[in-house]
Amino acid sequence: MAGSTFGKIFKITTWGESHGKALGVVIDGCPAGLELSESDIQPFLNRRKPGQSEITTQRNESDEVELLSGVFEGKTTGTPISMIIKNEDHNSNAYDELKDVYRPGHADLTYDAKYGFRDHRGGGRSSGRETVARVCAGAVASKILAQLDIKVKAFTKSIGDVVLPEGEIDFSVQNIVNMPNSEYAEKAIELINEKRSEKDSVGGTIECIVDGCPAGLGEPVFDKLDANLTKAVMSIGSIKGVEIGSGFDASTSTGSLNNQEGAGGILGGISNGKQIKLTAAVKPTPSIAQEQQTTDKDGNDVSIEIHGRHDPVIVPRACVVVESMVAITLADALLENMSSRIDGIINFYK
Amino acid sequence: MAGSTFGKIFKITTWGESHGKALGVVIDGCPAGLELSESDIQPFLNRRKPGQSEITTQRNESDEVELLSGVFEGKTTGTPISMIIKNEDHNSNAYDELKDVYRPGHADLTYDAKYGFRDHRGGGRSSGRETVARVCAGAVASKILAQLDIKVKAFTKSIGDVVLPEGEIDFSVQNIVNMPNSEYAEKAIELINEKRSEKDSVGGTIECIVDGCPAGLGEPVFDKLDANLTKAVMSIGSIKGVEIGSGFDASTSTGSLNNQEGAGGILGGISNGKQIKLTAAVKPTPSIAQEQQTTDKDGNDVSIEIHGRHDPVIVPRACVVVESMVAITLADALLENMSSRIDGIINFYK
Amino acid sequence: MAGSTFGKIFKITTWGESHGKALGVVIDGCPAGLELSESDIQPFLNRRKPGQSEITTQRNESDEVELLSGVFEGKTTGTPISMIIKNEDHNSNAYDELKDVYRPGHADLTYDAKYGFRDHRGGGRSSGRETVARVCAGAVASKILAQLDIKVKAFTKSIGDVVLPEGEIDFSVQNIVNMPNSEYAEKAIELINEKRSEKDSVGGTIECIVDGCPAGLGEPVFDKLDANLTKAVMSIGSIKGVEIGSGFDASTSTGSLNNQEGAGGILGGISNGKQIKLTAAVKPTPSIAQEQQTTDKDGNDVSIEIHGRHDPVIVPRACVVVESMVAITLADALLENMSSRIDGIINFYK
Amino acid sequence: MAGSTFGKIFKITTWGESHGKALGVVIDGCPAGLELSESDIQPFLNRRKPGQSEITTQRNESDEVELLSGVFEGKTTGTPISMIIKNEDHNSNAYDELKDVYRPGHADLTYDAKYGFRDHRGGGRSSGRETVARVCAGAVASKILAQLDIKVKAFTKSIGDVVLPEGEIDFSVQNIVNMPNSEYAEKAIELINEKRSEKDSVGGTIECIVDGCPAGLGEPVFDKLDANLTKAVMSIGSIKGVEIGSGFDASTSTGSLNNQEGAGGILGGISNGKQIKLTAAVKPTPSIAQEQQTTDKDGNDVSIEIHGRHDPVIVPRACVVVESMVAITLADALLENMSSRIDGIINFYK
Repeated sequence: MAGSTFGKIFKITTWGESHGKALGVVIDGCPAGLELSESDIQPFLNRRKPGQSEITTQRNESDEVELLSGVFEGKTTGTPISMIIKNEDHNSNAYDELKDVYRPGHADLTYDAKYGFRDHRGGGRSSGRETVARVCAGAVASKILAQLDIKVKAFTKSIGDVVLPEGEIDFSVQNIVNMPNSEYAEKAIELINEKRSEKDSVGGTIECIVDGCPAGLGEPVFDKLDANLTKAVMSIGSIKGVEIGSGFDASTSTGSLNNQEGAGGILGGISNGKQIKLTAAVKPTPSIAQEQQTTDKDGNDVSIEIHGRHDPVIVPRACVVVESMVAITLADALLENMSSRIDGIINFYK
Repeated sequence: MAGSTFGKIFKITTWGESHGKALGVVIDGCPAGLELSESDIQPFLNRRKPGQSEITTQRNESDEVELLSGVFEGKTTGTPISMIIKNEDHNSNAYDELKDVYRPGHADLTYDAKYGFRDHRGGGRSSGRETVARVCAGAVASKILAQLDIKVKAFTKSIGDVVLPEGEIDFSVQNIVNMPNSEYAEKAIELINEKRSEKDSVGGTIECIVDGCPAGLGEPVFDKLDANLTKAVMSIGSIKGVEIGSGFDASTSTGSLNNQEGAGGILGGISNGKQIKLTAAVKPTPSIAQEQQTTDKDGNDVSIEIHGRHDPVIVPRACVVVESMVAITLADALLENMSSRIDGIINFYK
Repeated sequence: MAGSTFGKIFKITTWGESHGKALGVVIDGCPAGLELSESDIQPFLNRRKPGQSEITTQRNESDEVELLSGVFEGKTTGTPISMIIKNEDHNSNAYDELKDVYRPGHADLTYDAKYGFRDHRGGGRSSGRETVARVCAGAVASKILAQLDIKVKAFTKSIGDVVLPEGEIDFSVQNIVNMPNSEYAEKAIELINEKRSEKDSVGGTIECIVDGCPAGLGEPVFDKLDANLTKAVMSIGSIKGVEIGSGFDASTSTGSLNNQEGAGGILGGISNGKQIKLTAAVKPTPSIAQEQQTTDKDGNDVSIEIHGRHDPVIVPRACVVVESMVAITLADALLENMSSRIDGIINFYK
Repeated sequence: MAGSTFGKIFKITTWGESHGKALGVVIDGCPAGLELSESDIQPFLNRRKPGQSEITTQRNESDEVELLSGVFEGKTTGTPISMIIKNEDHNSNAYDELKDVYRPGHADLTYDAKYGFRDHRGGGRSSGRETVARVCAGAVASKILAQLDIKVKAFTKSIGDVVLPEGEIDFSVQNIVNMPNSEYAEKAIELINEKRSEKDSVGGTIECIVDGCPAGLGEPVFDKLDANLTKAVMSIGSIKGVEIGSGFDASTSTGSLNNQEGAGGILGGISNGKQIKLTAAVKPTPSIAQEQQTTDKDGNDVSIEIHGRHDPVIVPRACVVVESMVAITLADALLENMSSRIDGIINFYK
């Protein structure tokens, strides 16, 4: 247990379940003096909000954040920042029929195995809804990074086999799939609609880039920047793979080629001052309307159809979650790096 | 700083540099009563030892481990286990010419950026030699897992574009590339020799499977089993990507297909009792004998040729390192999971 | 920063300020399956509630706890338990005149020094009101301990020079000073009233005993049970000293005497199965109505009188806070100890 | 388990037993660029070395430290610093008769209870010899503090009832009891010799003062500076009580008096820029030559006489251990405090 805290100095602790009263996060270790209000957080939440287009779940949540502590007269005080988001759309009866059945691709079986029973309403703690808390923390981390002109940006790199080529990215383009190219976005939407009509779902990849990151962040040999970024992103539900720089392509490359291009902004686990690049693989939404074979909690084979309001693809809404986790990891690394050298420490206390 | 500790309950702290006096590890939190001697550790070290075949560095190290504490009359006492491996092959003069030059693909620039200067002899702390300490700890973790019949096994899945197909694995086959199939191994060796003759190097992938792991390991939502495994493996130098189960293939799959196959033994960040599968991408060795363009520490463009005894491929020797990090992560998760349920606790103290 | 988390496995994170919207705690790592509701928490809160007698502050707070997560159908789920207590009595104007003045014996100067500014309303985060969150967590920890028949009890041992002798304790006696003896309690109340009439305050000591604790808890050499208990209690505002067993008396004792009596239930940092005894020194309330000399934030000498509703003694209300911190520390030690031996682990997973 | 690590950023991990091959410490998180060699460490070790006078154990150890990593060309590199001290005086046969007997006041029973068996030679890990590793780390921490003109000093405040009054301290005075006053030192030595002739031992107190500490160190509400200092000191074997500032005297004082004098340099858990003062109570050496009643591991009552070379008082040699733990705690707090304010962070990275 005790796995709901992330970070060493900029430390977040999240709590809450899909159909409980509320969800939230406590940030401990946010520096004092940062201007902060709910209006800094809300735009991040809005980017992951359900019900925004025809390709997302129609669950209806206003997802309004409330700041409960750690801010006084518009500035952070250096004490823990507590934020809460109330759950509104409590129709948990829909889940009653799933109480004793293990949905394929979900954590139903594993939560029962670990804890002896589970809050079966909408996946409880294992629901993607948990990520609202991460996004609130990500907004604060991003604001810290912005003070140093560090910019984090995550976007949809591919949906199924619709892959946006490196050279075709135009960040001025906006659309419901978060893919910064109108032409590819259209193809992606087409694919999503096709899969939905087949009562199926589809996966994709998210790319996250960081500009303006100073050289020197990361703490070898275990808390390397790439190791911590990878953990941060892999801890998001539905992520099945993470790459830094050339990633799996490095495995088929040669030293002479890869040395020049493949680092992705990190060498030896420490940022090198260039653009950081991370890519994450997102699995297809496991909740699909087709009939599926599974087991119930007594081990019997059963078949289920999962009805209700499920995203046929998670990728577009997950971008802001990936971005948040990357921002949180960088903010933490930024603070930890301050004690790397004795001359920096002496200067600081002068 | 302070990034050289890994794990929460089974906690390892490593130390040492490529050309320092010695390297070592302290394991804090190893349960008492485990039979342990140097003969349990040495076989793991031997698997990563240099100089074993024509495709590895000819650096000559006996890599003998010495147990200094935590074991009494052949059993662990529950107190910290300190292990040390002395460095023998101290020819650090070879590195003098690299003192002010940043080798491409290495951590030379980033260590200077972070710490203000660096131990330039053989990469210092950023050298792959650091992993001897991980392997010592991995041997102990594996012995703990063996008490519960949990078996971890890592092998070479691909070298460059020579990819061993799923159905062709035969673990009785042994060879210098750690690829469990004679035919593919030969192809891989051919490719490696070709790259070496071109003064180049090549990458590959390592697959790690775990059999016998009980359901319930992993601590959501950040210390999920897959998140921790991924960090553990990504913290190894030269690893650029990690996948769990279907990994990046999930991004082009559909819910109906992926739900049945893709989990890789982990759902919602908790083991489900089936085989765990992790794949890691290894970059080509950055030290190559070709002339390369780079910069020196004053920012001037310079060209270098890196001579000496470098592996043309790291993959075969890295298998035991991946296996060790997976074993360490599982041992830690195993211990942490014991406090998941109140009934388990009551039983324990009865 | 990041100092608002306590514990390794049973891990609590508190947040909130004296005059903010609310205060709360997130418990991460509470075992699943524990029956828990607000009615388990409220009695603990009531024991520290202000306004209960003539010797406590008249601040009017209902201090009602609300459980927001981690409990489903009356049982803990193993996921984070979030609890919140709303602040009602928001008359923060009373503090406006203290905005630029550093109250003697308070943290006003030090918070300004550390964070650059502070929430001056009632001490903000440094207020004793912060302890409501500790008490909520203490109630949960106590319930875990109760499953194993471990009982923690803290009481007033002395007020000023009114010291309750060892042999005079009768736990059936209840009074407003939490001193388990009617005669001594009367003397203590008399002393408190005397000091209050002098616009002054008085200190005292709290003793905490633990019965039923199994042998074996505590993790040498730094996370010894006595070391962690002492930190837990010393982290409470107004505590200036902590003793285990014979404490400072040991310094004037001899080996032949102290060996038999002085351990206080802990030897070598590990519980020995006997009664644990801890004593804490509480300083006199720093807020007093007399005129006092101090400085303002520009360094000028000023004199102040602190009006308002302040306890002339903190000791009676602090007992439940000490008891809570002891219970939290023990619960954590109890869970961590489960991984001490390989045979215990093998049995557990059988 | 896993209790042998202390600190968050300046993090030490110790290992080793009384009669094992060696003892040591790994410091992870020491800033790069600090000049460091064995000659900085050795003087600290010499201060705790046995066999220096007639009042200490005659165990013969040269206690020479060897630096194994983390230092290059005379400066720390920012990577882990590993230090080792070999055990020389291995006469462990003397302990064979104590194998099955629990010495009163020692950890024999509790180690058996926790771990199932123990290294009985000289107390194994629970021996005071463990503190050599703390002292090595303390020397490094002190050197960091010295860069900022922070000075830590611990001395003998009392032996038995011989208490050095506040006004009689003269740090130019040196003697075998570490009491900075010749007259009182003589009385103390007389008392020690008296107790020794009675085959008994005696306790005492150690005072530790810190000058030059900047305001702002400490991380409320749990990692307060006083809380962490107290834990650090309480984790030393034989310490039974710790006070900050007025300590237990505060319990009999009044607000009007204590506000001005009692803080001991820390308010609200944060240093206030004045002298820090901590006092620790040391119990009498439990190993005494008199016959004592105890139990063996089968629960039988037995009587023992402990022969061999035991200090009749631990206080003088423990001073440097207390000083070390205080220095380590301050170094850690110093580094953590750097991230307290956003303006400090922006300045740092400019």
